[in-house]
Amino acid sequence: MLWNGWGDPAKAAPLPQDVAVLLRDLLGVAPAAEAPLDLADVALPASRLADPVHAALAAVAEVRRDDETRLRHTRGRSTPDLLRIRAGETADAPDAVVLPASHEEVLAVLRVCARHAVSVVPFGGGTSVVGGLTPRRTDRVVALDLRRLDRVLAVDPVSRTAVLQAGLRGPDAERLLAAKGFTLGHFPQSFEWATVGGFAAARGSGQASAGYGRFDEMVVALTAATPTGTLETGRAPRSAAGPDLRQLLLGSEGAFGVITSVTVRVRPLPEARRYEGWRFPSFDSGARAMRRLAQDGPLPTVLRLSDEAETMVGLARPQTLSDLAADAGCLLLAGYEGTADGVPRLRERTGEALRALGGQPLGDEPGEQWAQGRYAAPYLRDSLLGAGAFAETLETAVFWSGIPRLYAAVREALTSTLTEAGTPPLVMCHISHVYETGASLYFTVVSAQGGAAGDGPLAHWQRAKQAANDAILANGGTISHHHGVGTDHRDWYAREAGPVGVEILRAVKARLDPAGILNPGVLVPE
Amino acid sequence: MLWNGWGDPAKAAPLPQDVAVLLRDLLGVAPAAEAPLDLADVALPASRLADPVHAALAAVAEVRRDDETRLRHTRGRSTPDLLRIRAGETADAPDAVVLPASHEEVLAVLRVCARHAVSVVPFGGGTSVVGGLTPRRTDRVVALDLRRLDRVLAVDPVSRTAVLQAGLRGPDAERLLAAKGFTLGHFPQSFEWATVGGFAAARGSGQASAGYGRFDEMVVALTAATPTGTLETGRAPRSAAGPDLRQLLLGSEGAFGVITSVTVRVRPLPEARRYEGWRFPSFDSGARAMRRLAQDGPLPTVLRLSDEAETMVGLARPQTLSDLAADAGCLLLAGYEGTADGVPRLRERTGEALRALGGQPLGDEPGEQWAQGRYAAPYLRDSLLGAGAFAETLETAVFWSGIPRLYAAVREALTSTLTEAGTPPLVMCHISHVYETGASLYFTVVSAQGGAAGDGPLAHWQRAKQAANDAILANGGTISHHHGVGTDHRDWYAREAGPVGVEILRAVKARLDPAGILNPGVLVPE
Repeated sequence: MLWNGWGDPAKAAPLPQDVAVLLRDLLGVAPAAEAPLDLADVALPASRLADPVHAALAAVAEVRRDDETRLRHTRGRSTPDLLRIRAGETADAPDAVVLPASHEEVLAVLRVCARHAVSVVPFGGGTSVVGGLTPRRTDRVVALDLRRLDRVLAVDPVSRTAVLQAGLRGPDAERLLAAKGFTLGHFPQSFEWATVGGFAAARGSGQASAGYGRFDEMVVALTAATPTGTLETGRAPRSAAGPDLRQLLLGSEGAFGVITSVTVRVRPLPEARRYEGWRFPSFDSGARAMRRLAQDGPLPTVLRLSDEAETMVGLARPQTLSDLAADAGCLLLAGYEGTADGVPRLRERTGEALRALGGQPLGDEPGEQWAQGRYAAPYLRDSLLGAGAFAETLETAVFWSGIPRLYAAVREALTSTLTEAGTPPLVMCHISHVYETGASLYFTVVSAQGGAAGDGPLAHWQRAKQAANDAILANGGTISHHHGVGTDHRDWYAREAGPVGVEILRAVKARLDPAGILNPGVLVPE
Repeated sequence: MLWNGWGDPAKAAPLPQDVAVLLRDLLGVAPAAEAPLDLADVALPASRLADPVHAALAAVAEVRRDDETRLRHTRGRSTPDLLRIRAGETADAPDAVVLPASHEEVLAVLRVCARHAVSVVPFGGGTSVVGGLTPRRTDRVVALDLRRLDRVLAVDPVSRTAVLQAGLRGPDAERLLAAKGFTLGHFPQSFEWATVGGFAAARGSGQASAGYGRFDEMVVALTAATPTGTLETGRAPRSAAGPDLRQLLLGSEGAFGVITSVTVRVRPLPEARRYEGWRFPSFDSGARAMRRLAQDGPLPTVLRLSDEAETMVGLARPQTLSDLAADAGCLLLAGYEGTADGVPRLRERTGEALRALGGQPLGDEPGEQWAQGRYAAPYLRDSLLGAGAFAETLETAVFWSGIPRLYAAVREALTSTLTEAGTPPLVMCHISHVYETGASLYFTVVSAQGGAAGDGPLAHWQRAKQAANDAILANGGTISHHHGVGTDHRDWYAREAGPVGVEILRAVKARLDPAGILNPGVLVPE
């Protein structure tokens, strides 16, 4: 992973010159004044992990204290994270990185850390975009990197379950399962880097969630190491035996324990895949069509609808932008995965339904383009940041009846805040996860980097983001559909959970993590 | 509800004479020696609710202290519960019954009870079969009857959600939703008496769960009154905002708070319903067919498979039992509900699949018979008990690969324990809830009432039930798929949850219910 951006440096691509021109003309983006820092020029504070504590840790697991390893475990991958790291801000660097190789080593590390008051930041792919890797800074902090827990422990082909260790990255999990004829079907945008443990701890949801479900719906059982001991929860397909404690660890973001393995439902590898595009005249009519499919079927494996702005930007070649803007409508992507005879049947029935709901078929090309570029957006963000622009995303979920109001309110909050501050943005949105009762809305914001008047771009964005978060809660949305809470959403999450809900979280945390070493300040309001 | 049995006394039916003969010849059942007690002859201990406490309660909600009301809120509807109440055992009668009319009144009742150390037993339909209504007896106990919270508070036809108060019984909820064109689709055997709050608090699952899902999957949001205050949780179709606290209240069986309303996903009223029977040569081949449908579709709305013993008893006229026993095979019931054109299509595709998997169609008659008698089993149990027999059920869920082993182990545990004790049983089983990864097994036991040698029938059954519970846990099953934990399953539940899981439950209970008034000893090991 690039230390100050996304993914594989070999895949980075500079922004085309005509897009740079467009950003300048449309949004007033000025090229960055300074060249980016080199890794070698970044200075880190000295590790505060005293030698006796280091020795105690090193006695139970591998520990690294070199600067580059610490830097590569500093913060996550939100745009504010990237702006900070690009500016050489390294105060959040952990004092060491611990790499346990087993559940037992994780338990042992937690015991040592509890004894020596060392905060622990569980670290999977490092892809959090909500400040999940930046707990309240304490005297001593280690990152607990789970990459060595990278095995498939068991596959039950009859029950279609598999036991995966937490440090497995998406592609490795898929490769190992494919060797047995199965897929997990979880393909979030962070797929190439994020890990199974992170999918679980942050309740991820992939691009094919309509067909394969959310990650929290795939988890049949899990094992977590906590400072109090091992928790194993989930032992049957479904149960009425008390509260579902899986659902307390899923979404717990490393604040209650470290998920070390999960038992997941798997599906047969699809024999066929096909993705196609449809045009709807408006976001409203497209959303209505999605709702009909989600409520009455047939439901494709992938279903995604871009609003007019996202459709325009996505479809258009920049030079012909003005020609297409008027009638681009809204692009709906439908993907079908499954058996060789099931896919054409599902596609045909979906097509009939979409046509009846006002859709026009656009053929396979938009679908194939999407499939090829499905993990590329974070690279594009790097290019935009490099060109002096600001780009960030935020997301929510809301009941179907609440979509029009929430959609308008969030756009308005972002647009008015940023415009008043002198950086009028382009706000785009898509619906990418549908359920019987509602859907998620995913917003992308591009603007000039603001905050020129002594007030940095971070504070500038923070105001817009706060306005968007307030609009989400005021209009019935949840503060996150799949990014999580971290530190960035914690205050809104506390409002969403309510005072009694927060008390429950605190009670669980106090019992499992009495020394308060696990991700202090992440998720649970202190 | 009949005070010492099930349901509407008008629907009670004495056992046919030939069945009584069969019970005698096959299982050694002897007619009951004594006539059943009359309601008027049952004596209750005096209410221990002192006048000042009564006055404090009566200031915030309706309170009843008469003997008949107290008797009608004594224990649940397990066979041990019925045997006790039929024997005039009333030590567990609550000291009063409180009938709040709103969420606020529930909160106020909890405050008064916490102040005066009065234990509270939330009471919906009173249909628990796992000792959920018999907490550890404390000095003062009230039943909190939710029957006055019986309204549908809101219906959102676009998002297909409805807000239901906890005291609504199944048929009333369906009638009120049907007036808006919707159904919940939750039809457990207790449907006619159990309430929405009980469905949620005990994680119920209905006979049409293959099509409509489990009750915990229907709950989008819920409101609970706790001694600490109001908890509202769930505000979007799905969320990554932290742990799912709904799933902590679902299945909490009144130990953490009183669920006062739930927001549920609803479905359009089906335009068509059709139920039919299929014959499979063995339980194994039938289970394999169910697995294929659950994993690869098409999935009917109702899917149920009886083993050889249950098929034999269910299909056979008693006089021809021996003729049919040899080739009855196993009866699979498939039900289809939905749109007028969807039902025939689903039925045709399912039929093709079942035929390919070795099924023989038996036509509509077995399906229609099942549909007509779907809520009758508890009445039959009353008749069996009246005739001197013992009849009880227990259930679990397990992954597909574990079914053969668990099925054999539970049958063996029940059969050997009861046979050694001199009452060889008839043990029957069906699979009635299927999932991608596994299914539930539901066992019915009929035998003579044992314990003649000075050891009552309760202790006699208790030994068999313990052996069955041990066999369930030893073979990978959960202690309950839909009956719940209560007090009867608490010790096995503690083993299933593990020590860290139990600590979590205790921490949550201590925070929400610091005075420990809510169902002490139910669910959470003390």
